[in-house]
Amino acid sequence: MKKILLLLLLPIVANSQQTDSLFIKKIADEILTNGKAYDLLYHLTKKIGGRLAGSPQYNKAVNWGFNTMQQMGADKVFLQECIVPHWVRGVGDFATLQNTNSSSVKKQLNITAIGNSLGNTKIIKAPIILIHNFQELENKKEEVKGKIVFYNAAFNPTNIRTFKSYGETASYRVNGASRAAKYGAVAVIVRSLTEATDNHPHTGTLRYNDSFPKIPAVCVGLKDADYIAQNIKKGNWQVALKTNGKLLPDTINHNVIAELKGTEFPNEYITIGGHLDSWDVSEGAHDDGAGVVQTIEILRAFKALGYQPKHTIRFVLFANEENGTKGGLKYAEKAKENKEQHIFALESDAGGFTPRGFLFTMDKEKLAKVKLWLPLLKPYGTEALDAGGGGADIGPLNKTFNTPIAGFMPDTQRYFDVHHSVNDIFENVNKRELLLGAVNMAALIYLIDQHSL
Amino acid sequence: MKKILLLLLLPIVANSQQTDSLFIKKIADEILTNGKAYDLLYHLTKKIGGRLAGSPQYNKAVNWGFNTMQQMGADKVFLQECIVPHWVRGVGDFATLQNTNSSSVKKQLNITAIGNSLGNTKIIKAPIILIHNFQELENKKEEVKGKIVFYNAAFNPTNIRTFKSYGETASYRVNGASRAAKYGAVAVIVRSLTEATDNHPHTGTLRYNDSFPKIPAVCVGLKDADYIAQNIKKGNWQVALKTNGKLLPDTINHNVIAELKGTEFPNEYITIGGHLDSWDVSEGAHDDGAGVVQTIEILRAFKALGYQPKHTIRFVLFANEENGTKGGLKYAEKAKENKEQHIFALESDAGGFTPRGFLFTMDKEKLAKVKLWLPLLKPYGTEALDAGGGGADIGPLNKTFNTPIAGFMPDTQRYFDVHHSVNDIFENVNKRELLLGAVNMAALIYLIDQHSL
Repeated sequence: MKKILLLLLLPIVANSQQTDSLFIKKIADEILTNGKAYDLLYHLTKKIGGRLAGSPQYNKAVNWGFNTMQQMGADKVFLQECIVPHWVRGVGDFATLQNTNSSSVKKQLNITAIGNSLGNTKIIKAPIILIHNFQELENKKEEVKGKIVFYNAAFNPTNIRTFKSYGETASYRVNGASRAAKYGAVAVIVRSLTEATDNHPHTGTLRYNDSFPKIPAVCVGLKDADYIAQNIKKGNWQVALKTNGKLLPDTINHNVIAELKGTEFPNEYITIGGHLDSWDVSEGAHDDGAGVVQTIEILRAFKALGYQPKHTIRFVLFANEENGTKGGLKYAEKAKENKEQHIFALESDAGGFTPRGFLFTMDKEKLAKVKLWLPLLKPYGTEALDAGGGGADIGPLNKTFNTPIAGFMPDTQRYFDVHHSVNDIFENVNKRELLLGAVNMAALIYLIDQHSL
Repeated sequence: MKKILLLLLLPIVANSQQTDSLFIKKIADEILTNGKAYDLLYHLTKKIGGRLAGSPQYNKAVNWGFNTMQQMGADKVFLQECIVPHWVRGVGDFATLQNTNSSSVKKQLNITAIGNSLGNTKIIKAPIILIHNFQELENKKEEVKGKIVFYNAAFNPTNIRTFKSYGETASYRVNGASRAAKYGAVAVIVRSLTEATDNHPHTGTLRYNDSFPKIPAVCVGLKDADYIAQNIKKGNWQVALKTNGKLLPDTINHNVIAELKGTEFPNEYITIGGHLDSWDVSEGAHDDGAGVVQTIEILRAFKALGYQPKHTIRFVLFANEENGTKGGLKYAEKAKENKEQHIFALESDAGGFTPRGFLFTMDKEKLAKVKLWLPLLKPYGTEALDAGGGGADIGPLNKTFNTPIAGFMPDTQRYFDVHHSVNDIFENVNKRELLLGAVNMAALIYLIDQHSL
């Protein structure tokens, strides 16, 4: 009986897969031939630039995103207000490494203050101590008082996915200041979270623990990190450090949300998004200009193909991912308030590199269903549909509603070369790689819209 | 009976796969941690530079390759002489597009003479005719006489693998001159074989048909190509063209060959290689500096790990791939002369990009065996082991002995952005991508050495 049923179903399944395959080919052809994502990225990075929460550039980006998605033919575009932290870097940051045995041996370090860190009013001059990991910090806690802690935890080059290395070392940037302050350190210098062959420092956010003094915190590029590590073994070294970071009063920013209304299930939502904010030191091209313009590109392509989704699709440019995630939190909060039903959310926030797959957070049964679509996506670069991903901005949806979520996972080899550094610029994004990412994302959204989960 | 046999075999297979998996992890760790490929590439590109057959730089590269592979601990390094064409570009090439109705409308085109093309002694001034494909050329053959043919065949952006686009359009660069000369054209201008967003022209080789005049042939960048195509629709346009290419007498170049002697089958050879020559306009970083330094890196890693291969492994830096393939031809010729037994050859000549797989030319049965290794390679980026590849330099081995061959196939999205242009420089190669390519190549060679085919 079962066998007969299966045989009866086979032509339907085959037919459905063929229909899907044909439509996905149409999506790919449309995006690869007429895609606007690259031009949009040019505007966002070169005409607007870095756009940290609270900055005038962020508001410019909101206007641009709003107008662009309206021009693309969204059924509706609206803003969603949220309160965000307003950190400013200030000017005049510096750090000088000096051998106290020889006044002539000095090195200006290439630093960037860590986001949300607070500056010091007077120049700090203090001895520097090399710390490789938190265990070593605990072992040497008696030696830390009055010193500048230099965390030199390197990426493990044998990790194939670079996000693993980031995960293993990010805590030194995020929590290193307070953990060192606990033992009386007066500032921290952190090896940048990168394997780049250059010397640019990479910023990012930190979280102070209110129980301890909020000491200055900076990152150094890898050449400087290696220089410090090698030299301070011998002789006495100190660092003169000045940073000027400030937290101004919280301010209002906006998520930008466009909708294509669902024809069958208008009250069931599928979300695609990236975050519109970026660090101030870069153009935020890969992080996350790419995710933003891919999101808009999918809206454009669906409209160009006359695709009328069954479910309502939301194209969301999130606020404040970098130093607060207030945009993502607000989106889930409003969804709850409005009793919205969210069936799936996808985020692109791993750069505009060549596509390799998607990582999901959802029930096993649902993931098993998704995995059956692999042959449909494989021709466009997706090689894996695996468990274990999502995105900072859509995580709150998953937490609130148990909404299935996924993160687009392009190739990761180059991401941390540019991530949060001055090198995260338009020139380092490849047009075809960017568009192919949008192709795979659009195809996944189409499949979920057609077949639900 | 079969089932029992299979059950008995299972632990052996599993055990063997585990041994392989562990050794491949060692290879990966060694290359990703201590790899020298990136530093070697720096030397090859920045200290030696472009190295076309017959150039002084090519000989410098030979010395460098010879010494480097000796230092890496090869059992033997030797040179293999071959006769190569000696084309020189000359200086002072230019092309000016001019509207003959208005002497003020002039545009200097950004051109590069096609390799092996011959220059003109006097400036050619002739009307330009737009031709999209060879069919159109045939249809318009009466109109071509005395004109400069402009071939404007664009890459098809909907091809996911860019090599497909290259395959579809390369003939305009390779054969376009003679096909136009047949109908009396006085020169050809070819749209560069690229989808790059810049305007750099991309060179490459051509083949003249001796039956027709050997007319000058140049490539233009894409912005210029689009400019020409758009403008010459209206009014009368001509081009003033001067190129200075010359074929000097054939000269001697060398393949550089290093060996690790096989412990069990010293007379059976496995070849890994890339080509040492490059176009003169670039540093030849991806094409094929990457293949060269990956080849040397595998030698280094095998020595560092104390790996003693069963078969003799040859690490070959081939001469003259770009405009003659004389190195690859000589290698197969000498192999035949010496009655060598070649069981496998692998070439890396698709750039130092993130690995995605290998393409093979071999019997179905052998390919079926190779495909079983996919789970061993997948953790390092290889997603496909498919039919349909090889390499220009190892093709002659396959032709002579039916030797199974394979081409390393990294991600193809960025390759033709830089290929044969001034942008094929060290800065456009990513260290981790380059090393990961070497990891996958080394692992494949190890598996073939251990298990034969």
